[in-house]
Amino acid sequence: MSKQFRERLAAIRSRFGEWNVDAVMVPRFDEHQGEYCAPHDERLAFLTGFTGSAGSCLVLADRAVLFVDGRYQVQVRQETDAASFEIAHAIDRPVERWLDEEGPARLRLGLNAMLLPFNAYDRLSRSLARLGGEVVALDADPVDAIWPEQPDKPLGAVYPVPLERAGETSASKRARVAARLRELRVDLLVEAQPDNIAWLLNLRGTDVAYTTAPHSFLLLDDKGDVEWFVDGRKLPNDRATLEILDVTLASPDTLAARIAERAGGHTVLVDPDYAGAALTFAASNAGGRIERQMSPVTLLKAHKNKAELQGFRDCHVEDGVAWTNFNAWLLREGPERLGAGRPVDELEVEQRILAFRQLSPDFIGSSFHSISASGANAAMCHYSSSAATNASITGDAPFLLDSGGHYLSGTTDATRTVALAPQGEAVRAAYTAVLKGFLAMLMLRFPAGTYGHQIDAFARRALWDLGLDYDHGTGHGVGHLGAIHEVPHRFTRGANLFRIEAGLVLTVEPGYYREGAFGIRIENEVEVVEAGNGFLRLESLTLIPIAIDMADRAALTPDEIACLDGYHERVRAQLLDKVLPETRDYLIEATAPLSY
Amino acid sequence: MSKQFRERLAAIRSRFGEWNVDAVMVPRFDEHQGEYCAPHDERLAFLTGFTGSAGSCLVLADRAVLFVDGRYQVQVRQETDAASFEIAHAIDRPVERWLDEEGPARLRLGLNAMLLPFNAYDRLSRSLARLGGEVVALDADPVDAIWPEQPDKPLGAVYPVPLERAGETSASKRARVAARLRELRVDLLVEAQPDNIAWLLNLRGTDVAYTTAPHSFLLLDDKGDVEWFVDGRKLPNDRATLEILDVTLASPDTLAARIAERAGGHTVLVDPDYAGAALTFAASNAGGRIERQMSPVTLLKAHKNKAELQGFRDCHVEDGVAWTNFNAWLLREGPERLGAGRPVDELEVEQRILAFRQLSPDFIGSSFHSISASGANAAMCHYSSSAATNASITGDAPFLLDSGGHYLSGTTDATRTVALAPQGEAVRAAYTAVLKGFLAMLMLRFPAGTYGHQIDAFARRALWDLGLDYDHGTGHGVGHLGAIHEVPHRFTRGANLFRIEAGLVLTVEPGYYREGAFGIRIENEVEVVEAGNGFLRLESLTLIPIAIDMADRAALTPDEIACLDGYHERVRAQLLDKVLPETRDYLIEATAPLSY
Repeated sequence: MSKQFRERLAAIRSRFGEWNVDAVMVPRFDEHQGEYCAPHDERLAFLTGFTGSAGSCLVLADRAVLFVDGRYQVQVRQETDAASFEIAHAIDRPVERWLDEEGPARLRLGLNAMLLPFNAYDRLSRSLARLGGEVVALDADPVDAIWPEQPDKPLGAVYPVPLERAGETSASKRARVAARLRELRVDLLVEAQPDNIAWLLNLRGTDVAYTTAPHSFLLLDDKGDVEWFVDGRKLPNDRATLEILDVTLASPDTLAARIAERAGGHTVLVDPDYAGAALTFAASNAGGRIERQMSPVTLLKAHKNKAELQGFRDCHVEDGVAWTNFNAWLLREGPERLGAGRPVDELEVEQRILAFRQLSPDFIGSSFHSISASGANAAMCHYSSSAATNASITGDAPFLLDSGGHYLSGTTDATRTVALAPQGEAVRAAYTAVLKGFLAMLMLRFPAGTYGHQIDAFARRALWDLGLDYDHGTGHGVGHLGAIHEVPHRFTRGANLFRIEAGLVLTVEPGYYREGAFGIRIENEVEVVEAGNGFLRLESLTLIPIAIDMADRAALTPDEIACLDGYHERVRAQLLDKVLPETRDYLIEATAPLSY
Repeated sequence: MSKQFRERLAAIRSRFGEWNVDAVMVPRFDEHQGEYCAPHDERLAFLTGFTGSAGSCLVLADRAVLFVDGRYQVQVRQETDAASFEIAHAIDRPVERWLDEEGPARLRLGLNAMLLPFNAYDRLSRSLARLGGEVVALDADPVDAIWPEQPDKPLGAVYPVPLERAGETSASKRARVAARLRELRVDLLVEAQPDNIAWLLNLRGTDVAYTTAPHSFLLLDDKGDVEWFVDGRKLPNDRATLEILDVTLASPDTLAARIAERAGGHTVLVDPDYAGAALTFAASNAGGRIERQMSPVTLLKAHKNKAELQGFRDCHVEDGVAWTNFNAWLLREGPERLGAGRPVDELEVEQRILAFRQLSPDFIGSSFHSISASGANAAMCHYSSSAATNASITGDAPFLLDSGGHYLSGTTDATRTVALAPQGEAVRAAYTAVLKGFLAMLMLRFPAGTYGHQIDAFARRALWDLGLDYDHGTGHGVGHLGAIHEVPHRFTRGANLFRIEAGLVLTVEPGYYREGAFGIRIENEVEVVEAGNGFLRLESLTLIPIAIDMADRAALTPDEIACLDGYHERVRAQLLDKVLPETRDYLIEATAPLSY
């Protein structure tokens, strides 16, 4: 194995002279900066062996450094050859800082400028400039050049989202985006985000696992006219089923040239955090004035319309049925099989929850790789079970499942933590605090226009009282049959300057993680709804019973109990006639009111 | 009056040709972007008549537009001539937007580039560039040019802060700043903030009312060597009383030339939000590389050392005595004089609280203009009483006093709201919610490194539950014998990306304002202290009884009552042997525990 990667490093280094560089940088991004990559784009894994979802490799003539964040510090050492690759912590010591401290002076660093958004490219450029170096945008990708067996780009089928589910015609959406461009005095939008394009054109695709947006690019001008850069082989034979009859189709390969043709003397909006830097350069080199800001599509898409919100409510009934059937199965069979010496394990759970979802005719696929985590494995927030780590579900510690699905009507994301046997004080105290934080968010009434960073801490307060906390955000936006982590709204500790308004869909997911011992998280998707007098509140979309046997009932206030009971009443009312017969007793018991 | 201002406008317009501009912009800033201005710098008031603390005037050939924020929309119309000045809302429609929408194309806009920090200058430049215009940095200030009777620059005496109060020598502070510059790879710091310079050199001054920092500029290089640009007439005859024997003194007039001499080939840090843009241009035109970020002095100064914190505690005993004597007087004499037909009024209160402070030998002066506001006047957050608005303090609505002082040991800022008679339900409900929000902040335990924007909303939650809120931040930093609003830490709704750490001093000041009816605010200064296990809490520095007669006792939780009782016990213990004899009964009654 290590020989293979040494050879690949040698191959890439052997091209440095030809490229006139001293080093290359290989990020894990694809051309769309998505969370998931197609096999064609797994360049970092090909070069280094590291398969995590974020990272980058700096290849110098005599050293190679892999930058990965805290989640992957263990995994990266397991997957890569220590003799070939040094490891750096991407957050504590990002590549810019590493270059500043250890990088050679006057370094010429080559990279594929489609794989790095402008802001990241610019940070790197400025860092190199301090020591007299520079970034060199290569004509072709440096890994592709040494990867003869590279898989082809994906050619997943594209399919329409009918108007009754989309809630607005593509023409109307384009007109709204064009109006916004005119307000901004922008002539042309370069759109590189697949989920923005999918929303704008009312279609979805199957290019990449767990995602619903086909790889493509799009130009939209201030009149609303659209050029769509997509591989035509992905489109249905009858293109009239898509709302693209008035759209000019072109190959993605022609994008940069077309931008150059259209940019001269015009103002071109390119999202500096999501569009490859090469697209900015294509416009600016052609004499375009660059407007660097978030694509206006991003914000318009985040505000869901009535049809989309109804879709979310519908798919959560489907998903709630699957989850509740799963919970009933686990709590019924789990202890039995544990007693019989053949316990349920994490990988079996991944299959089971998928199988329960597949009972719904509207189910499309998982919306992300489920986190099925038993005991200490659940203390790793971004755990992904594998044959090497697959743990049994026992009564010794809680079991955490974070899982979601894409349905024709929308996208779900939920987490529940359950226990097959009574838990000790440490788990009970933490679970109670997590539950109190979760309920605090659902009970909160807050002014329209509040920022997510203002209310994130209400989910932490009960943990803080115990001297505890969790090291992730409290919630993220969710796309409509779209990205599981949809920007820009979040409930976070860091700043998020996008105001919370009615019609947004986010998650609420406080947790607590004790390393080597256990992990707890409770997560619902919520819809932001009006609460009267200019105020808003978060209404649960997710419909899954929340375990109460790990909570300390005496520590819950009357308001918290009323909130929990009200939620469980809704869950039972919505699901009872839809779950499997063998699930009914569990559902009735799990949703019984705490108040009496 | 209006003729006078028409003549001034005509005078400034008559110079447009000579300056080769089509318009000028006159901000209310001085060269240090301070909150308070010396008479010499009241250029906006001279030109327009508007005396508010923030605003700017755009003078075109045929129009003049005054941009002021929401606080001053009424006042600006009272003070200025409607025939000469249009009024715009500086927040809803800032000057950049106004220019974009109504400004002439290819506008050459002249201004004094010392009065606008780089970021504001840059925003203006980019806005003008969209319509082909540009900002013209004038050689001299355009108002000074037409103001023959302009007062001289202030020449207030400079005095030392002794080491036992400063807690660290100036040499040590300079060494720490220089070390930070080396970390940042910066060769030279251009420091334009008077309070940063005062902290760095362990001295204070008397140039501007309510402030303690002398006007001056400073250059500090990466070896810690300092050039101080100050009018020598402000210094004491015996300069050895100041820690400046190793500092090179120079006239402020020579600053730009000296920056130009030193900047070539070097990296120069200029704070883009506080240093006049002219200083950035002086460095960049001379070939300097500009590092645009907050001055490192700002952050070092915000973290108070042990001597400074002890000073804060000391001055709050002094200030608590003054406040408590005042409260006792008001609650004793207020009702009596109301009955006798000669009620206490707002302006008398301003004098009284000052007189009570002046009983302390350590008292230097007011730290800001007191907000003494009765009834509906208190609904205006930034009210300042005047002969025209001076209202009597009656029993009909609460009376709000926001007031503070500079003492040799530190700076105070507090607000109390009291009532001379029982209040109705609207006031009681709001007061109770404000009190609950105030106590929530004092009871909160939060992880070290939390941002202020994460916890601001705990002060609002009880109001939100009633569908109410307040339209200002929850708290701001306070300088040590320094600025009453010290950057960079704040408890705010908007992002504040400076982490809360032990040793910071801030205010906590929730409120509620019902227009035309009443205003409520409760404000303490607090010190951020360790709470164990990596957690922090806010410990009150302010020692003043909090009125409880307007609160609904039944709505307070046992924790809230315990917090309030504990605070009042401290107040009584610290102040009882120091207040005036006639204040003792009030203090004992006002601090009696609610729990029993």
